[in-house]
Amino acid sequence: MATNKTAKTEIVAEPGTQQIVIMRALDAPRELVYRAYTDPELLMQWMGPKRLTMTVERHELRDGGRYRYIHRDENGLEAGFHGVFHGEPSLDGGVVRTFEFEGYPGHVSLETLILEERDGKTLSRAVSVFQSVEDRDGMMASGMESGVNEGMEKLDELLARLQASS
Amino acid sequence: MATNKTAKTEIVAEPGTQQIVIMRALDAPRELVYRAYTDPELLMQWMGPKRLTMTVERHELRDGGRYRYIHRDENGLEAGFHGVFHGEPSLDGGVVRTFEFEGYPGHVSLETLILEERDGKTLSRAVSVFQSVEDRDGMMASGMESGVNEGMEKLDELLARLQASS
Repeated sequence: MATNKTAKTEIVAEPGTQQIVIMRALDAPRELVYRAYTDPELLMQWMGPKRLTMTVERHELRDGGRYRYIHRDENGLEAGFHGVFHGEPSLDGGVVRTFEFEGYPGHVSLETLILEERDGKTLSRAVSVFQSVEDRDGMMASGMESGVNEGMEKLDELLARLQASS
Repeated sequence: MATNKTAKTEIVAEPGTQQIVIMRALDAPRELVYRAYTDPELLMQWMGPKRLTMTVERHELRDGGRYRYIHRDENGLEAGFHGVFHGEPSLDGGVVRTFEFEGYPGHVSLETLILEERDGKTLSRAVSVFQSVEDRDGMMASGMESGVNEGMEKLDELLARLQASS
């Protein structure tokens, strides 16, 4: 498969700030990347760590719509995530939504996903802002980085498959 | 009227952070303060600068519900604000929602309102986190402080009236 094995995900969490910025160059047109982020059938094929399977329980992609994802491991252990979309999601305007990990209830972040075209490729930039620096540090300490990196590798592979079959 | 003329609103925006914290001690029971924040009929009596009138166009107080407020001046000039509620708003859990000023579209903040009882009074604490330090600085530069201070004075008066008539 023609996936880009050298691509790197940049995860930036500057000390003392309350945000995490996740940047990744993806070897696919912006429209296809947007579909991979917003179509539940595609989303569940790549998001999250490799050892977990993902279910999309709810995905109302519209202003005020709710979403809920569940990650499950091979022993049946589950982790849920949910939130609401702010504004109408769109290719140009991006996707803005709240995010809450149900294992740490009451701690909410605001996510903004922007997809930019760069020479036929797509730069995906996701900014998450947390209610406090402590919440942000807790998210970084949770091991989310390996989950994001593995998810992005799966996304690379999915985008390659979709382009090969189109 | 027995309003507390010496009460002060504390507005904290530490340099380099992307949040604004608004704290105010209110001379009323927590349940009443919660009503003043969540009942549209009461909200429009106090929120915002004194020279503006406020209309609540929409106020769906539930997980995923949307709200929209409009401030109008005496010349008919309008400023709209809208967002969505994240999670079921409650007295103990507080109110978490997104917030967007329509005069600066695409810039969203995440607001968390927590009401704590302190010796029969209520400490209102609202934390707003912005997508960037620049957005936060822009909000501070917009003159929001005088609007917040005037609104809190009107809230003091409203709470005193409600308690006097109950």
